[in-house]
Amino acid sequence: MGRESFWKTDPTDELRVGDGFVLADRPTDARIGFDGGKSDGAKALAEGAAILNDLQERLYAAGIAGDRRRVLLVLQAMDTAGKGGIVSHVVGAVNPAGVHYKAFKKPTEEELAHDFLWRVEREEPAAGQIGVFDRSHYEDVLIGRVRKLAPDDEIERRYGAIVDYEKKLAFAGTTIVKVMLHISRDEQKARLAERLDRPEKHWKYNPGDVDERLLWDHYQEAYQVAFDRTSTDYAPWYVVPADRKWYARLAVQHLLVQALEGLDLGWPEADFDVDVEKARLAAS
Amino acid sequence: MGRESFWKTDPTDELRVGDGFVLADRPTDARIGFDGGKSDGAKALAEGAAILNDLQERLYAAGIAGDRRRVLLVLQAMDTAGKGGIVSHVVGAVNPAGVHYKAFKKPTEEELAHDFLWRVEREEPAAGQIGVFDRSHYEDVLIGRVRKLAPDDEIERRYGAIVDYEKKLAFAGTTIVKVMLHISRDEQKARLAERLDRPEKHWKYNPGDVDERLLWDHYQEAYQVAFDRTSTDYAPWYVVPADRKWYARLAVQHLLVQALEGLDLGWPEADFDVDVEKARLAAS
Repeated sequence: MGRESFWKTDPTDELRVGDGFVLADRPTDARIGFDGGKSDGAKALAEGAAILNDLQERLYAAGIAGDRRRVLLVLQAMDTAGKGGIVSHVVGAVNPAGVHYKAFKKPTEEELAHDFLWRVEREEPAAGQIGVFDRSHYEDVLIGRVRKLAPDDEIERRYGAIVDYEKKLAFAGTTIVKVMLHISRDEQKARLAERLDRPEKHWKYNPGDVDERLLWDHYQEAYQVAFDRTSTDYAPWYVVPADRKWYARLAVQHLLVQALEGLDLGWPEADFDVDVEKARLAAS
Repeated sequence: MGRESFWKTDPTDELRVGDGFVLADRPTDARIGFDGGKSDGAKALAEGAAILNDLQERLYAAGIAGDRRRVLLVLQAMDTAGKGGIVSHVVGAVNPAGVHYKAFKKPTEEELAHDFLWRVEREEPAAGQIGVFDRSHYEDVLIGRVRKLAPDDEIERRYGAIVDYEKKLAFAGTTIVKVMLHISRDEQKARLAERLDRPEKHWKYNPGDVDERLLWDHYQEAYQVAFDRTSTDYAPWYVVPADRKWYARLAVQHLLVQALEGLDLGWPEADFDVDVEKARLAAS
């Protein structure tokens, strides 16, 4: 259940996409495994941050010492669901030196001239790193599918290509955690309205957000297909209720803590003679 | 003097490398501009972190809205001087989505096959970003000079090339802040000894650190030459006393705050019709 003290029950299994998963049946406002409210959640997040920070330093140290393992967090969501808050409040709690963050935006001409995985492969986290994909190769089967940005058979091909790619990543030592932040249509409306109401939030608003919102059901269906086709033992999807931002942060933090704890990281042993070095240092 | 409440006097001018600067005369244990002790420093750092975080969000927002400006923090120091702590405690306080962090290590074969600035140019921060160079092109006139890794005339050429390069960066909208963390030889010895004494710190120790330490005076001289040749109005050097880690963090945080305040960043105005969008959202 991790080192955190505040979970009543471990939410991991309930968040994980398994056989027979139906997105439409999943809650957006639940607090799975957690009993408290918003202020408890903030306190808990701070406790978890210290734990995550310690685990990340061990991963980083292991990488320096030659351990090839790494972690990759993939974040997907409808607009306003809170990816940005996960990055600033969860990922932001660990040392930036150990994080490889990449936001995947609308593909460039150069990116479009390659296979859809090309730009993703270039951003894989290195050994010892936590990689964070803010959007990812899944856009190519989400907006790609909804907006028909590629022929049907190409979209079909991509699910298998993703599974193969993630299998390769996993076998190369990458612990993959794929998260969809799940909000309700009403909650999105409220959040977009807030961005329009507050001038200091206008930069976060894009008229295209409403265009995509109008395709809500198509996107939910595209997510369902992606879950059905790409949630595997070595690269599972987690669907995190995100109507409460503080809960979503706590849950994603926990998934990262679990991923790192699963690596059972100690501190690397010295690859030099400590006494010899003490003597050299004393003489210097 | 910045928005922070805790500076008694603004330390910026005293930290900046100006005409007649002599590194050997600069203190390593001073608390320039700050009256308190370590615990006051920790409190002050938290206050400054909130200010820095707000300024960074404005820079990021401006970048989204088309502003081409950016900030680049260059960190150089002798081993153990605390670059890592600056990254985790100062840079770590802002949203990772707005930070481009790059650690420059021993050059690869491919990097060595290009001009020394090649690998640096590829890591320039984008508009709206704070770039952080953990070591930098200055290695090529520091270890490069001390270890004679290139012919004398090539080392000589590099100072001018750096000045030209940084001028180009500055004119392209980059506010450049170059920091040398200045520690004493004794303090380095104590910190290396601590790494050897604590098994969980062994991974931070490298026998090569003592080899470089034996060349201490040569490195100090190489820094002096670099300051003489490359501290310019548009890319000034700051030498920050770093025997007290907490003070160095506070001072570098302040230099970043000053750099961002100098950009006079408001929130971008909407490039859409707010009322039209409110109506579209309401109907969606």
